[in-house]
Amino acid sequence: MRTGIWFIGARGSVAVTATVGAAALRARLADATGCVTELPPLRSPALPAWSDLVFGGHDVVTLPLVKKADALAAAGVLPGRLVAALASELAAVEKELRPLPTGDTQAVVAERIVADLRDFRDRHALDRVVVIDVATTEPVIEPHPAHATLADLEQALTGSEPVLPSSALGAYASMKAGCSFVDFTPSTGARLPALAELAWQEGVPYAGNDGKTGETLVKSVLAPMFALRHLRVTSWSGLNLLGGGDGANLADPAANAAKVASKQRVLGDALGYEPEGTSRIDYVAEIGDFKTAWDLVTFSGFLGTAMRMEFTWHGCDSALAAPLVLDLARLTAAAHAAGRSGPLTELGFFFKDPLGDGPSALAEQWAELVTFAAGLRG
Amino acid sequence: MRTGIWFIGARGSVAVTATVGAAALRARLADATGCVTELPPLRSPALPAWSDLVFGGHDVVTLPLVKKADALAAAGVLPGRLVAALASELAAVEKELRPLPTGDTQAVVAERIVADLRDFRDRHALDRVVVIDVATTEPVIEPHPAHATLADLEQALTGSEPVLPSSALGAYASMKAGCSFVDFTPSTGARLPALAELAWQEGVPYAGNDGKTGETLVKSVLAPMFALRHLRVTSWSGLNLLGGGDGANLADPAANAAKVASKQRVLGDALGYEPEGTSRIDYVAEIGDFKTAWDLVTFSGFLGTAMRMEFTWHGCDSALAAPLVLDLARLTAAAHAAGRSGPLTELGFFFKDPLGDGPSALAEQWAELVTFAAGLRG
Amino acid sequence: MRTGIWFIGARGSVAVTATVGAAALRARLADATGCVTELPPLRSPALPAWSDLVFGGHDVVTLPLVKKADALAAAGVLPGRLVAALASELAAVEKELRPLPTGDTQAVVAERIVADLRDFRDRHALDRVVVIDVATTEPVIEPHPAHATLADLEQALTGSEPVLPSSALGAYASMKAGCSFVDFTPSTGARLPALAELAWQEGVPYAGNDGKTGETLVKSVLAPMFALRHLRVTSWSGLNLLGGGDGANLADPAANAAKVASKQRVLGDALGYEPEGTSRIDYVAEIGDFKTAWDLVTFSGFLGTAMRMEFTWHGCDSALAAPLVLDLARLTAAAHAAGRSGPLTELGFFFKDPLGDGPSALAEQWAELVTFAAGLRG
Amino acid sequence: MRTGIWFIGARGSVAVTATVGAAALRARLADATGCVTELPPLRSPALPAWSDLVFGGHDVVTLPLVKKADALAAAGVLPGRLVAALASELAAVEKELRPLPTGDTQAVVAERIVADLRDFRDRHALDRVVVIDVATTEPVIEPHPAHATLADLEQALTGSEPVLPSSALGAYASMKAGCSFVDFTPSTGARLPALAELAWQEGVPYAGNDGKTGETLVKSVLAPMFALRHLRVTSWSGLNLLGGGDGANLADPAANAAKVASKQRVLGDALGYEPEGTSRIDYVAEIGDFKTAWDLVTFSGFLGTAMRMEFTWHGCDSALAAPLVLDLARLTAAAHAAGRSGPLTELGFFFKDPLGDGPSALAEQWAELVTFAAGLRG
Repeated sequence: MRTGIWFIGARGSVAVTATVGAAALRARLADATGCVTELPPLRSPALPAWSDLVFGGHDVVTLPLVKKADALAAAGVLPGRLVAALASELAAVEKELRPLPTGDTQAVVAERIVADLRDFRDRHALDRVVVIDVATTEPVIEPHPAHATLADLEQALTGSEPVLPSSALGAYASMKAGCSFVDFTPSTGARLPALAELAWQEGVPYAGNDGKTGETLVKSVLAPMFALRHLRVTSWSGLNLLGGGDGANLADPAANAAKVASKQRVLGDALGYEPEGTSRIDYVAEIGDFKTAWDLVTFSGFLGTAMRMEFTWHGCDSALAAPLVLDLARLTAAAHAAGRSGPLTELGFFFKDPLGDGPSALAEQWAELVTFAAGLRG
Repeated sequence: MRTGIWFIGARGSVAVTATVGAAALRARLADATGCVTELPPLRSPALPAWSDLVFGGHDVVTLPLVKKADALAAAGVLPGRLVAALASELAAVEKELRPLPTGDTQAVVAERIVADLRDFRDRHALDRVVVIDVATTEPVIEPHPAHATLADLEQALTGSEPVLPSSALGAYASMKAGCSFVDFTPSTGARLPALAELAWQEGVPYAGNDGKTGETLVKSVLAPMFALRHLRVTSWSGLNLLGGGDGANLADPAANAAKVASKQRVLGDALGYEPEGTSRIDYVAEIGDFKTAWDLVTFSGFLGTAMRMEFTWHGCDSALAAPLVLDLARLTAAAHAAGRSGPLTELGFFFKDPLGDGPSALAEQWAELVTFAAGLRG
Repeated sequence: MRTGIWFIGARGSVAVTATVGAAALRARLADATGCVTELPPLRSPALPAWSDLVFGGHDVVTLPLVKKADALAAAGVLPGRLVAALASELAAVEKELRPLPTGDTQAVVAERIVADLRDFRDRHALDRVVVIDVATTEPVIEPHPAHATLADLEQALTGSEPVLPSSALGAYASMKAGCSFVDFTPSTGARLPALAELAWQEGVPYAGNDGKTGETLVKSVLAPMFALRHLRVTSWSGLNLLGGGDGANLADPAANAAKVASKQRVLGDALGYEPEGTSRIDYVAEIGDFKTAWDLVTFSGFLGTAMRMEFTWHGCDSALAAPLVLDLARLTAAAHAAGRSGPLTELGFFFKDPLGDGPSALAEQWAELVTFAAGLRG
Repeated sequence: MRTGIWFIGARGSVAVTATVGAAALRARLADATGCVTELPPLRSPALPAWSDLVFGGHDVVTLPLVKKADALAAAGVLPGRLVAALASELAAVEKELRPLPTGDTQAVVAERIVADLRDFRDRHALDRVVVIDVATTEPVIEPHPAHATLADLEQALTGSEPVLPSSALGAYASMKAGCSFVDFTPSTGARLPALAELAWQEGVPYAGNDGKTGETLVKSVLAPMFALRHLRVTSWSGLNLLGGGDGANLADPAANAAKVASKQRVLGDALGYEPEGTSRIDYVAEIGDFKTAWDLVTFSGFLGTAMRMEFTWHGCDSALAAPLVLDLARLTAAAHAAGRSGPLTELGFFFKDPLGDGPSALAEQWAELVTFAAGLRG
């Protein structure tokens, strides 16, 4: 089952880490730590093998892949020896990267994206392609009437004014090209009624949103812990300090707002009420690719006794995200092969802000995922 | 279903907090925060109501109950207004407390304990009594040949040399009196082959060991989080600083060893391997009843990237333990009523070192508990 | 040397804690922990004794002093037994509290403040009075041409438009009444050229600004530590979570900006450069009077090695501020007695944003303070 | 002023980091971050220049210097590019390293050490040599009567039983060779009456003990902060997790005890009383060269209000120690040149457990150091 992975944001930290990592797995230069599809309950012949994966993608920047990989190695995100050992594999992927198309109308841009995707699929004789958005986070968008139905949307795309944010245009074009789509960011992606309609029409599945890599992952086990012990969380406040590319972008207040909302959602879901407090994101260039998050949880127990818990998470977002991206590519491709279309609501395990109304507790999300994976085995 | 709760260590912080709390719940002066048997999935008519509970107990110390309650109020563990409002209820319980019996042989001591338990049950016309050990932690014991069978044990108890630690003698006498038994401490309790035999013979259930109230509770959700994400925990080290009565006792290296072993067990179970590091316990009188635990977890992710997480837990052990003690009393009494005998292995949710081979991840323990509680409804 | 202490914000947490504390010291019901003027290098007959102090003040709120003291006791800021034991002393102070005057022009308001201060001084036959602003933080003010000279200011005060923020009007009136003035908040207070002129004219000293009670205190020793070791601080970021009255006020972005600027100043001063990062303040009502601050410092050492330090400060602002307020009252009154007028730049030890160009490292500020106190002895 | 630096433990992390760093400074490939002798108040023509320094040393291990440097680069302690760029400089130092001599009596061993030191000085025409002990920490030693006077000691050294620990034998031989001596470890070094006598007799200065690089450095500013604010520290507890060579050695309980005692000393000195609590050291191989220390400080303020502070220090001991070692070499050599002999008690700034009765607060130690350095200028 030859499977293409097409990154939107292919020269960014997450995509390059995933690209190098997949090449390392194929070459048996690394083990699959961090890839949950290699855990026994999920491992399955229904998933494409590491050797089945072919990489390509779009980006607006032009930094050569190997330069980015060297920079990640210098920052401690990737082992330098891997980058050196995989130079020819990276050169091969470099040839598959394209500038993100532009055009006078969004309809034209979409056609050009579709053409790039078809060309990629044809040249490599791929059974199917998964498009994965790992580009930087967009600001929260304004609603637009044309988002409501596919017919209205396609009409509006031919106008001179853009009606879709870039992430949604990417989702649109992916589906038109018959590709499944994964939104690993908090951006809009496929979350518009018109695009849901398109996914059903084209018979393609999609997944999202916003990969759960750090602070929110911890929240998704701690919040249920307090709930299961019938302890009352009175406040939950956090500060995320990060300095990589995504950090700089999140310094933009609009993008920050999108991300922050996504971060607190798990609390209301898991606890059944919204505790006081907010989760802030600050950009500190010096901190680089390793993010530090600090959270303070105050809670009350029996007879109102006030207690507290703090945690500090010091993680490398790219190293946490990249294996999940590969997992999502394998699972989404297999779901596509199994005939699934529309939103893959069973993949909440991977996301801060999952599609559908699934559970927010990690253990319950895991149970759903195991059932989902078993279903793919047929 | 009138149910007696008989505490071993009835004048200690946990027992007094539970006693005051149960009186407050009965008087509707407090809500049931911290009591998991009041969460919808566990709430059940099979459990004794708060108004069905009658308290009594043994202790080696003689400090009046109300003095201890005042001290706990001064330390911020109990609200002073509750202690004042419940003075007459506490005076009633005071009359049910007895000095822990002594005697020339352990057989004689056991008989006297049995007599106290029968007297308590008869005077209050109780349907059944649950004995709960919340006394201070014992040192790790030496094995003894008489622990192997009930016949050997009963023979040895008549000798002049003690063969059982105090916690196990309490379990023995409880079962002889037809009472169920809960060991909330890391002490031996019912964990001897001879006592398992006795439980089956007398048709009484028992539960344990070592209530999971703080650092280990957090470990039981964080360790599975790392496992589910296929992240490799390379070390897990902790320091517990505590100052209450249990703290002073744990300054004794032998008792400390018992507790520390119990604390790291969850990691091996949840991860499938033992990471480096130990969990230390230090006594600091000034810290009082609010324990502070700090843990450092180092882990590696995709392609070996090194990351880390720290947490600080600042909790009041008595306030965390007391509602669980009440939960265990209700569940164990209901299990006894439902005809269960022997070890209640489904109660791993409550313990650091549970009986049987059940799961160590909190979410799985919760699922087991929900099934168990559903079964009691008949 | 009978000395009056007149609080602006006399019914707030800091003033009430100071009032209760001074009464407790006088009654020998408490020791002087937290009062630096009781440390041997500062202790001096030139300072007014605890028994020399008489309390009064203005406030816009009307909550009785004893009610506020009870609320502080319930929150764990004051011991309840002290509040009970000092009921008659608090009743006496209650009689000295006045509503903050109002009027058609600021000149009229100032006259009424002056009248209240003179009345207080006369009725108690006080040698001198120190006015201390502990009211909630004002927003950053707009510059106004009338702030430049005393003549322009006095002219403008008679107009119908206010030209001074409340804190500066308080400073103006205090000086007109011949009282010294201490600004314990980040508000403007005496920091206007016209008021400096007035202080010299009236022969009164003044001190400020913004009491250094928590996170900034720690910064004022840690930043010099990095500097003395020639380590390069690359970023310093912080989050302050607080819930008392000052917290609610600081949720106002303008007041927050004033406070945040004051908090980072120490870093530039102590290090000689401004590291990246900001110090945020968030209001979380549940956190109450005990503030939690978390700071992350990243730094580089020999050959560029990247390292980091975190700290969490969990302090009660009122309990930290109140003894410093008493210290400042004693020192300012003694300076007034010794003939000092104008800004007391030697009191940087107490403030986040001190008057003048003194050192920002705590140890150097201490040395200055010791010299200052020795000078007062004559 | 050509100056030799002779390391005892020349192939260990600290010595190799210092050796590489000094070569980098000489070659202008790095700046002097971490070297306090490059701060303006200490910079002085009396100190040997970087280009004046010549390195040699003893070690019991034989790992080539460049291999150790590569290992430190792999661990993130040294930049790999520096190690590569300085290969020929390291090869030159390699030729100056000698196995630590052995012999039938300690007198013989000492003679051989003296011979090595004289040979080093003569071959390089050095004005003077500083011997610096950076070997692993020794267990606490037993007192011996021969430690009391030089005459008794020299007699005893000729016997077949060793009377000095290795660190003290190194100090003895250094002084006999006319070299100054710095003990950067908690081992005995020159701290015996007989060796003080020898230092005066030979006219050589010595300094020590136990470089203050991490947790204790922070304590030496925080403890004075609490003291200056008249806050009462009620407990101070810490856990140090470390994994490098020194960590493995400190897993030995006797060495651990030496280090732990040295770590708490600063508190009693700075506060004037000993708060509760201990500072533990645990070896965790996975943690490697970057040590993590966590401290919890509980304190009480005005009217007894209980408060707390925590800090986590995540530092690279070798990167923190190496520049201080170079500073000490420069200062000790200059003191020797200036005619100083005996203990250099003014160097407390650098040590956890300084010689003499100097201050323990970092700011006061700094003031002493500035005066000392000014004195060297003549």
